[in-house]
Amino acid sequence: MDAYAILEQVRAEKPLVHHITNWVTIYECAAVTRSTGALPVMAHAEEEVADMTSISGALVLNIGTLTPQLVAAMKVAGRRANERGIPVVLDAVGAGATPLRTRLSRELLDDVKFAVIKGNVSEIGTLAGAKAETRGVEAAGVEGDPAQLALRLARDTGATVAITGKRDIVAGPNGRLLFINNGHELMGRVVGTGCMAASVIGAFCAVEKDPTVAAATALACYGVAGEIAARTAHTPMAFKSALIDAVGGLAGDEVRHLVRITTG
Amino acid sequence: MDAYAILEQVRAEKPLVHHITNWVTIYECAAVTRSTGALPVMAHAEEEVADMTSISGALVLNIGTLTPQLVAAMKVAGRRANERGIPVVLDAVGAGATPLRTRLSRELLDDVKFAVIKGNVSEIGTLAGAKAETRGVEAAGVEGDPAQLALRLARDTGATVAITGKRDIVAGPNGRLLFINNGHELMGRVVGTGCMAASVIGAFCAVEKDPTVAAATALACYGVAGEIAARTAHTPMAFKSALIDAVGGLAGDEVRHLVRITTG
Amino acid sequence: MDAYAILEQVRAEKPLVHHITNWVTIYECAAVTRSTGALPVMAHAEEEVADMTSISGALVLNIGTLTPQLVAAMKVAGRRANERGIPVVLDAVGAGATPLRTRLSRELLDDVKFAVIKGNVSEIGTLAGAKAETRGVEAAGVEGDPAQLALRLARDTGATVAITGKRDIVAGPNGRLLFINNGHELMGRVVGTGCMAASVIGAFCAVEKDPTVAAATALACYGVAGEIAARTAHTPMAFKSALIDAVGGLAGDEVRHLVRITTG
Repeated sequence: MDAYAILEQVRAEKPLVHHITNWVTIYECAAVTRSTGALPVMAHAEEEVADMTSISGALVLNIGTLTPQLVAAMKVAGRRANERGIPVVLDAVGAGATPLRTRLSRELLDDVKFAVIKGNVSEIGTLAGAKAETRGVEAAGVEGDPAQLALRLARDTGATVAITGKRDIVAGPNGRLLFINNGHELMGRVVGTGCMAASVIGAFCAVEKDPTVAAATALACYGVAGEIAARTAHTPMAFKSALIDAVGGLAGDEVRHLVRITTG
Repeated sequence: MDAYAILEQVRAEKPLVHHITNWVTIYECAAVTRSTGALPVMAHAEEEVADMTSISGALVLNIGTLTPQLVAAMKVAGRRANERGIPVVLDAVGAGATPLRTRLSRELLDDVKFAVIKGNVSEIGTLAGAKAETRGVEAAGVEGDPAQLALRLARDTGATVAITGKRDIVAGPNGRLLFINNGHELMGRVVGTGCMAASVIGAFCAVEKDPTVAAATALACYGVAGEIAARTAHTPMAFKSALIDAVGGLAGDEVRHLVRITTG
Repeated sequence: MDAYAILEQVRAEKPLVHHITNWVTIYECAAVTRSTGALPVMAHAEEEVADMTSISGALVLNIGTLTPQLVAAMKVAGRRANERGIPVVLDAVGAGATPLRTRLSRELLDDVKFAVIKGNVSEIGTLAGAKAETRGVEAAGVEGDPAQLALRLARDTGATVAITGKRDIVAGPNGRLLFINNGHELMGRVVGTGCMAASVIGAFCAVEKDPTVAAATALACYGVAGEIAARTAHTPMAFKSALIDAVGGLAGDEVRHLVRITTG
């Protein structure tokens, strides 16, 4: 699994990555997408999302500040992506925090076939049907082994499932299980690092056909960028800027030297 | 009034602070909330705001980019907060600038009991019924003494009223009057410092029962962070990042040494 | 054409610049407006946009994340601006990328008389009726000479037309053609630099009656700020902050020394 080769492909192909996302971190999602070498486009009018998705290499749906209307647009875009074979990434922000989020997340899972479903442990736990607590957009506990929950949700949906956290977990629908041991603790203290992870996954999915490989290598590259950013930036806002810029500056020797993807 | 002790309590309890806010500074509000040690959550769908408020320690309503639909969601959230005894902060951004803003602000005051109402001098003047001019979101003049206007609005609404400016004014509904002599002139030149002040007040209200104490100590800590940030950052965008990070780095000796809350 | 004199006038008059803009770069637009010395206000409720425009010195309409409702509000604001003689700037973000964007852009051109229409080469090409390809919000090619397309659209609409790119082109409705040879290649790698350019143009239009002069000098000052920012910032996020701050720090000798506006 050559993470850097996939990143190089993103840089060469410059795929368009269509986002229907939240209003909090929308700039950060666009900026990190651009840093991967892909081109971000944010568009949410129900009247245009199918057209925008059609010209894109991947679609990222993030429910961070969802409304029923926004989710309706997500369904339209997601269905079009499915028709055209364009990979779709779901960032299930806050699933489990309110009944609306849980219900609309489930509706999205019913309506759209996702390449990758991403969340923190309680968001994924919620979607996998486990007892989980989500405090706003923060994981606050889950019953059961996270890797097993990821595998279960992957099997049930046919999607690759990614749980982000201190150690990221990526589970394929075929039972493949990968752990990404990259990143830095500052990533957990900055608003938007989770959302940005989904954008990076989207960019990688646009060029790499296997969503499990795309998700694992995307998270590894993003984690390595976090490690590099933390060398010079030690506070959240400074780190956020440095992280986005580090994604853009990732070099082959560093990525190859630092990536830590394991199977156990 | 031990400002640092309250900040320490925010850091220890990590309350969820639910925001229904504007689209301009929504990231900044989330980031500064996180810097206080609290956990921000932004959610505005009318269908979920009551649920999100119910699991939160405070609710912050900011009308910076209001629409009638958004204000409807604010009312739902605000009423739920009142039922549950969860403190609500209003940031009356632009009250007075247009008839819609003035009218919807008044409706919010009628529907929701606020712990703290925050604004610049012309926004508070408008709500207090004085002759005031608001240019967009900037204060452009008010008739009457700001402290007296704050006290009047506090008495009329039962809320603590905070006027932010060069010297912040905090008026309690019981007639208590406090002045906060912290901050730095750069805070007046950065987009979003007012909105962030309301978020910090929200975080403090989540752990401190007396809204007057919460508002005064929040503004003092925030002002101290501004003073610290200004030591190294001298331009608006650099200062904004430094300010948010300085809130996260506030140490007890500095807060105790620098806080300037007076009664006259 | 004294670019610095116009900037000085913005700083002295502090005009309010009303934006109805997109959710991605709304903070950046507000921040750069403030850096020019003008006062930004973002307001999009159809019920208040006419009132907010009425107290403003310029109106900036940006369709980056348009919806039919948002465009309806833009029309209301634009018509009011026309009635009052307040200059209106259109940033035609993504025109040509989807049928909705092209159609709603055309509707705006039909309903509102613009002082300045700004876009990249494919957005302006689309509006001028040329064969053009817009990938999301990026120019991906156009048939015909950009300057001629700008002149054609200017003649057809009575607006000054500005094409931003490596070399900016400004075409007046009277056939005047200007080229701005300022800026830095990093500006093409940062999310939001195009949107911010429209905000700076808006601020300049608020004080300079000739939209062609306002657009050209605004783009020149903004480009000079980019050149200055690039002296110390070498990565996109760092550069974005430095660029906004550089607009605020522009000094007369540097502007006069660096501005490169030519007629061919």
